[in-house]
Amino acid sequence: MADNIADLGEFGLIEAVTARLPQGPGVLLGPGDDAAVLAAPDGRVVVTTDLLIEDRHFRRAWSEAVDVGHKAAAQNLADVVAMGARPTALTVGLGAPADLPTAWALGLADGLRGECEPLDVSVAGGDMVASDVIVVAVTALGDLQGRAPVTRAGARVGDLVAVCGRLGWSEAGFRVLSRGFRTPRAVVEAHRRPQVPYDAGPEAAMLGATAMCDVSDGLVADVGHIASASGMLIDLDPDAVVVDEPLQQVASALGADPVEWVLTGGEDHALVATFPAGTELPQRWRVIGTVTQASAPGRVHVGGEAYGGGSGHDHFRPH
Amino acid sequence: MADNIADLGEFGLIEAVTARLPQGPGVLLGPGDDAAVLAAPDGRVVVTTDLLIEDRHFRRAWSEAVDVGHKAAAQNLADVVAMGARPTALTVGLGAPADLPTAWALGLADGLRGECEPLDVSVAGGDMVASDVIVVAVTALGDLQGRAPVTRAGARVGDLVAVCGRLGWSEAGFRVLSRGFRTPRAVVEAHRRPQVPYDAGPEAAMLGATAMCDVSDGLVADVGHIASASGMLIDLDPDAVVVDEPLQQVASALGADPVEWVLTGGEDHALVATFPAGTELPQRWRVIGTVTQASAPGRVHVGGEAYGGGSGHDHFRPH
Repeated sequence: MADNIADLGEFGLIEAVTARLPQGPGVLLGPGDDAAVLAAPDGRVVVTTDLLIEDRHFRRAWSEAVDVGHKAAAQNLADVVAMGARPTALTVGLGAPADLPTAWALGLADGLRGECEPLDVSVAGGDMVASDVIVVAVTALGDLQGRAPVTRAGARVGDLVAVCGRLGWSEAGFRVLSRGFRTPRAVVEAHRRPQVPYDAGPEAAMLGATAMCDVSDGLVADVGHIASASGMLIDLDPDAVVVDEPLQQVASALGADPVEWVLTGGEDHALVATFPAGTELPQRWRVIGTVTQASAPGRVHVGGEAYGGGSGHDHFRPH
Repeated sequence: MADNIADLGEFGLIEAVTARLPQGPGVLLGPGDDAAVLAAPDGRVVVTTDLLIEDRHFRRAWSEAVDVGHKAAAQNLADVVAMGARPTALTVGLGAPADLPTAWALGLADGLRGECEPLDVSVAGGDMVASDVIVVAVTALGDLQGRAPVTRAGARVGDLVAVCGRLGWSEAGFRVLSRGFRTPRAVVEAHRRPQVPYDAGPEAAMLGATAMCDVSDGLVADVGHIASASGMLIDLDPDAVVVDEPLQQVASALGADPVEWVLTGGEDHALVATFPAGTELPQRWRVIGTVTQASAPGRVHVGGEAYGGGSGHDHFRPH
């Protein structure tokens, strides 16, 4: 096999990559034409897009190509399920330096496939161009299966706030990797490949969720998006903020506060949703707060007080 | 107004950009949530994606931001109409350095809107991240309006080959700009903003086109894609290869061969299609060749001979 993608050539690379990406029944026309054609049985289509840039969103020294593929797919698929929809397909644009090892590009494809296949999602199209650093542009499509989309704007006074999935794990992994360590494996792996509870998105929609989003920027920031879009104040219960065991271990070793990671760490892509009071929630949905009033819209409190820790993340400003 | 996008901040920039992007009736939920929701009345959706990287696909010294917006939209919209579909929406991922002038980001949005608005296409979602160079990742969606997609694979022996739109203009503009000139304006403008005959795509489908693609890589290369996908040999008629007047003027000044630009220049996004013999074509569709035989599949001849000029373009190999 050609060692790098310039040896293989653009069309050779496209051929090698698409050979690794089987097409499911929802793909009416797959890669190789001007565009793909997908089934949209609902008569509506959900669409979201994210860019990942090397050394901004991932580092080749920290993550294998297959990890980057998993993560790139996961963060887009999470946005689809956060609307209450079932993901159907991805398109992927890859910008890559000419000397990128062919194995890296194929590993990326394997990671995309690995994340998509259990969900019956296909990588149905894409683009490959030259770039000094690796750029991965993913667009995910989804099907609402007849349901109304669950937006960020529907939370009402008295609703429960509940979360499903991990909080703070990716941040803990990032801290570990930043110090040059590779363990504990659990949090490092969580940083490389988020574990997204995909089926909890449609589940929440069927349970009557009034608002939902995925936790990509951090719990306080993303709950803030719901509070802001809904014109509500949301109060999180500090006693309900659980710090999972691996985070306690890492925080203790690093002398850090794991509660801050849980409240502000992003990239785990848990789902946070609001439900009418009294909704019977499956056990994996943990109630962490309430929607309290519309007189202070767009604010998030923790235990009745404005949260003092770092929150939010601006892509264009230094950390 | 903040001079650069770091001053404005990620959320300020998103707000300023989305304020410039009105949403049409096909957008059921626009920017601002985890994902957009679009109408897909046909029960199928066409999707295509392209990456543009600064200094690879455009140069800030050669093109204004509004031009880059037009071009980024155009090359994706052209892929949608080349399936015979009507474009409905774009999503746009922008990677940008923190010191990017705010005016540049807003100009990009204006260009995207300017290209989309006449087609009733909305920019329905996107992503913004930090990047050392500008990255524009566009995904376009389209609606087949009940028609079968026109793929590259349906050309049959005896079909006419016809083209609609400009050939070689963008290449001529590129040559002029590469020499440090800014005129003739007609070809320079053509390089900055392709003039795509969008409605010719659905028109070709309704006329019974058996295969179609847009000319993004060059006429010989893209006709080659049809020949290859259809398992046919396509013979182009050298007498039908028209060199438009502005190209003759530029070629004469530069001592170059304009026929090569017409046969191999990309990025004008003309449409090339095959039609059953005897199809009555509107005047803007110029017959330029025939589909001749299946015994030498995937080849393109010009006047019965293999074309000797440069053709095709490999993104990962030096020009």
